[in-house]
Amino acid sequence: MTLFSHEHFMREALRLASQAAQEEEVPIGAVVVAGDRIVGKGYNQTERLHDVTAHAEMIALTAASNFFASKYLTDCTLYCTIEPCPMCAAAIAWAQISRVVYGAADPKKGYTLFKPSLLPRRVEVVRGILEAECAALMQQFFRQRR
Amino acid sequence: MTLFSHEHFMREALRLASQAAQEEEVPIGAVVVAGDRIVGKGYNQTERLHDVTAHAEMIALTAASNFFASKYLTDCTLYCTIEPCPMCAAAIAWAQISRVVYGAADPKKGYTLFKPSLLPRRVEVVRGILEAECAALMQQFFRQRR
Repeated sequence: MTLFSHEHFMREALRLASQAAQEEEVPIGAVVVAGDRIVGKGYNQTERLHDVTAHAEMIALTAASNFFASKYLTDCTLYCTIEPCPMCAAAIAWAQISRVVYGAADPKKGYTLFKPSLLPRRVEVVRGILEAECAALMQQFFRQRR
Repeated sequence: MTLFSHEHFMREALRLASQAAQEEEVPIGAVVVAGDRIVGKGYNQTERLHDVTAHAEMIALTAASNFFASKYLTDCTLYCTIEPCPMCAAAIAWAQISRVVYGAADPKKGYTLFKPSLLPRRVEVVRGILEAECAALMQQFFRQRR
């Protein structure tokens, strides 16, 4: 039983995504949750760090692994505002995350474009939580840059 | 024109892989090369760092990006002892690496298991450089742990 809803944690991921936007990064945020506790957070920092591996999800996974001093994050849920890319999905699989909850799909770069699935069958995937807000943040960001 | 052969740089990746083995990490090493210069190095540190994202290739990519203060590594070659996993292949794609040279295939976890290819068509892939040595290091490591 959990006290908090998916929306509660996605709201935190969205707050992190807004932080990314303020820093002129593609606005994607992620949190890792164990039970009812946030154990890792991240937002996209590829520009600031000059590092393609600094996606929100990767940073959140590394933070959660530091928290537990364990590379495996079994029984944890990763929340992210946008469908993970293949790099992040493969990292999620390596970390043995139990559940992934994302806001909006990424039809161009998302992990679901690849077969066989980059997430093993045992990973529960929940889609569409605060979808409109997650997508709007991205659309707004890219509209401003055109 | 390059002064050094693929074997020259793979030898350095192998040296890094041996370092990993000494630290009881799965023995995989990687270097990023620009022209004739090594601009990033890495060996697998997932155990020490408690971090599934700490693969040799990811560390080498981040190091090379730091070297250039650029997230794009166009015109660079990544050498790695074992076929990259999907996480690393997707990171290689994000970084716009031009060429990947690897030693031994990884038929269980390698990126080539997935379709469409995680590496865009413009990435040149060279396989089998010092293959026997790269594979032997892995076999020896896993044999000792059984």
